[in-house]
Amino acid sequence: MATSAEVTASNPGSGEVPGTFDEGYKDGWFSELSSMWPGQALSLKVDKILHQTKSDFQDVCVFQNEAFGNVLVLDGVIQCTDRDEFSYQEMIANLPLCSLPYEPKKVLVIGGGDGGVTRELARHKSIEVIDQAEIDGEVPRTSKQFFPKMAVGFDDPRVNLRITDGLKFLEECAENTYDAIVVDSSDPVGPAEVLFQRPFFESMHRALKPGGVVSTQGESLWLHLELITEVAKMCKDVFVGGTVNYAYTTIPTYPSGQIGFMLCAKANDGEPFSFKESRRSPPEGLRYYDEDVHRAAFCLPKFAKEALRGHLTS
Amino acid sequence: MATSAEVTASNPGSGEVPGTFDEGYKDGWFSELSSMWPGQALSLKVDKILHQTKSDFQDVCVFQNEAFGNVLVLDGVIQCTDRDEFSYQEMIANLPLCSLPYEPKKVLVIGGGDGGVTRELARHKSIEVIDQAEIDGEVPRTSKQFFPKMAVGFDDPRVNLRITDGLKFLEECAENTYDAIVVDSSDPVGPAEVLFQRPFFESMHRALKPGGVVSTQGESLWLHLELITEVAKMCKDVFVGGTVNYAYTTIPTYPSGQIGFMLCAKANDGEPFSFKESRRSPPEGLRYYDEDVHRAAFCLPKFAKEALRGHLTS
Repeated sequence: MATSAEVTASNPGSGEVPGTFDEGYKDGWFSELSSMWPGQALSLKVDKILHQTKSDFQDVCVFQNEAFGNVLVLDGVIQCTDRDEFSYQEMIANLPLCSLPYEPKKVLVIGGGDGGVTRELARHKSIEVIDQAEIDGEVPRTSKQFFPKMAVGFDDPRVNLRITDGLKFLEECAENTYDAIVVDSSDPVGPAEVLFQRPFFESMHRALKPGGVVSTQGESLWLHLELITEVAKMCKDVFVGGTVNYAYTTIPTYPSGQIGFMLCAKANDGEPFSFKESRRSPPEGLRYYDEDVHRAAFCLPKFAKEALRGHLTS
Repeated sequence: MATSAEVTASNPGSGEVPGTFDEGYKDGWFSELSSMWPGQALSLKVDKILHQTKSDFQDVCVFQNEAFGNVLVLDGVIQCTDRDEFSYQEMIANLPLCSLPYEPKKVLVIGGGDGGVTRELARHKSIEVIDQAEIDGEVPRTSKQFFPKMAVGFDDPRVNLRITDGLKFLEECAENTYDAIVVDSSDPVGPAEVLFQRPFFESMHRALKPGGVVSTQGESLWLHLELITEVAKMCKDVFVGGTVNYAYTTIPTYPSGQIGFMLCAKANDGEPFSFKESRRSPPEGLRYYDEDVHRAAFCLPKFAKEALRGHLTS
């Protein structure tokens, strides 16, 4: 346990300094320390460090663990592991896509440099184009070498991977372009901070077709209910006349063992829309998501439902 | 991180030696190491150790943590914390009770020495008697001192707390006695090992009224799916003609961030019964459980649903 690592006491998303793998590495274990979850840390035994580098944007590390296989750590925070990544990737991709009352054709991924979300989107046969804007080229390079089962997503001929800033990409893209946008970001500390802010959501709203949907990494109900409530309020304001909801999934290697998704739909000539029911059959090959899991993902614990009351639509 | 603690590599429930708080305590942090979850550990910062003793049955420790408040550790495993205990207690008590098509009058708690389950049962006004068999008197004593919000359950005049072996208590109790039995046990290592075995479930079946229900601590889908499948098979065999199902809840301080419940109902003259829907209004004062959460708790991730297919009823 790297108690030597001084964690800055400041608010999430307030421009604090990100951590590193080395700060959490001691006596053969990595502990995920962060001021976003003070006083608690998931610790994983490091059987072998496979890769360690500083990219232009962040501290990158891959290590091997007996329970979870290969583990990707960016700026000292666990991003994905071989064993449980499917829960997150399947849910962040299929909750929005299977809610759509029509077959999506053109989709965008922001972040998601490991390729897992892209792999899940590529399972949908109706999709013709998968654009992707990942800020850090080191992440897809690392994934291709150490997470081939996620990076396989990049091999699909429909994928256009650009190494570029997601916000800039959106600002330059034509209005009414996408049926769905999936934002697979890290936490609002370091390079992903802008992805939790209003200008980014306004740009997504602009880039979506009417009736198009957005799904973003939405932090943890147990840890970040205030942040989630603030983001929900902002989304309801940006997606005026549209739909905003929140769902979650279980995943052992994210802080507190689960993570949520903020889901927004752009208004479509007053046509009613709800995220709560799956409208299309899920693609083949899934291990976490199905229609029942979709419906259950919106049933929030009572304390969360009460905190978010009035800030979600349907 | 207490890497100095050698964790015995053996199967859960195979009679291995339990751990201690001290084995996981190093540099001001407690890491929950166990061969039941090799290579991973939740680590909590120890602000202050409030209580430490060896009872006749186990290693007992209470410490203070900035995120979770007071934390109870038995044999080196986190049992409950001030901040998140309500999720587990509300779900293990209300999933069975609110499934009942009639008002329960007589209920039994096995284990549950912290008093949290008893508190939840006591919210049900129809209940006339709450018997409780806890093996270790040190646990209620500790709870009364350091977890008054859980121990408050013992103050209810309907509660008869006996410090005795749960299996022995059941073997001596009259047939067809209880409407519901809740088993709030630790893991199948140390004193709770027998509570995962067939003779114990047979004794519960005998002690239940026809149509009565059982809810037991059922480990984690992400970690112990094989153990869960074995217990489900055994339950289906013991509760022949009755109902067996499995539900889960999220809880940050249990391994992998969630825990499940094995639910069994005793056959009742062929009258159909299902756990999947809540049939009675939940009591006042809850923070996790409601009718929607009840229904969602049975929607297992696809990988778990497939592993348990054929071993659950409804």
